[in-house]
Amino acid sequence: MGMAKNEAAVKNDLFGFGEKNVAFAKYFIGDSYLNGLVAPDDNIDVNVANVNFEPGCRNDWHIHHDGFQILLVTAGEGWYQEEGKPARKLHPGDVVAIHEGVKHWHGATKDSCFSHIAITKGTSEWLEKVDDEYYDQLGK
Amino acid sequence: MGMAKNEAAVKNDLFGFGEKNVAFAKYFIGDSYLNGLVAPDDNIDVNVANVNFEPGCRNDWHIHHDGFQILLVTAGEGWYQEEGKPARKLHPGDVVAIHEGVKHWHGATKDSCFSHIAITKGTSEWLEKVDDEYYDQLGK
Repeated sequence: MGMAKNEAAVKNDLFGFGEKNVAFAKYFIGDSYLNGLVAPDDNIDVNVANVNFEPGCRNDWHIHHDGFQILLVTAGEGWYQEEGKPARKLHPGDVVAIHEGVKHWHGATKDSCFSHIAITKGTSEWLEKVDDEYYDQLGK
Repeated sequence: MGMAKNEAAVKNDLFGFGEKNVAFAKYFIGDSYLNGLVAPDDNIDVNVANVNFEPGCRNDWHIHHDGFQILLVTAGEGWYQEEGKPARKLHPGDVVAIHEGVKHWHGATKDSCFSHIAITKGTSEWLEKVDDEYYDQLGK
């Protein structure tokens, strides 16, 4: 079953499935996969990566410091939520600009794979998890 | 015919067709369309836009200063060339990282629409055109 889900995501997504996201797994519930596209260097001060979430996978609440993050949704259905605002359902072609200091989380819906490119500058502060009780009441 | 081309590009591209690229038309040969996705502000120091080139459309040789440009190819077939190197054929899912000071051009192939997201920081210095004699010998 896991394999079938992965293959569906690979076929859906232009920018590659990548490796299992082991480095950040502790900041996620569920499995995600990360395909690095551009690494920062002396000139380019952003990281660009394609992030693939299996159904039900989401990251913890977090804040970007000394930078920002931009999400470009390429496949599936997902959620984006800022603290104090309702969760926003995301679809391919949607774009989210996240300013520094804004507490938020993002991830797949319960029944869909979800892929977005993330353009990230600066560092991330990881906070509490999006627990099942909260996530489940968002619906599908 | 123009309408049919535009419609094909709209259907192909996740991130929108946008308006005719009038502001930069003098730096292009052929018609392009620009859909702004994220405008820079006090925090976000990059511009993100989807650029759609009609078949045969390409921009002039140019250099990015005080920044960089990253291209994420979303539809069609195109060319990317840096000075002194052969032109590279681009396909959906391809990524190009262009460092500051590197003279280059990009655009569609002769027979295909072409769309890429451009993540741009800094200013552009526009140089000579990619003339028909040179462009035509690249083939399709």
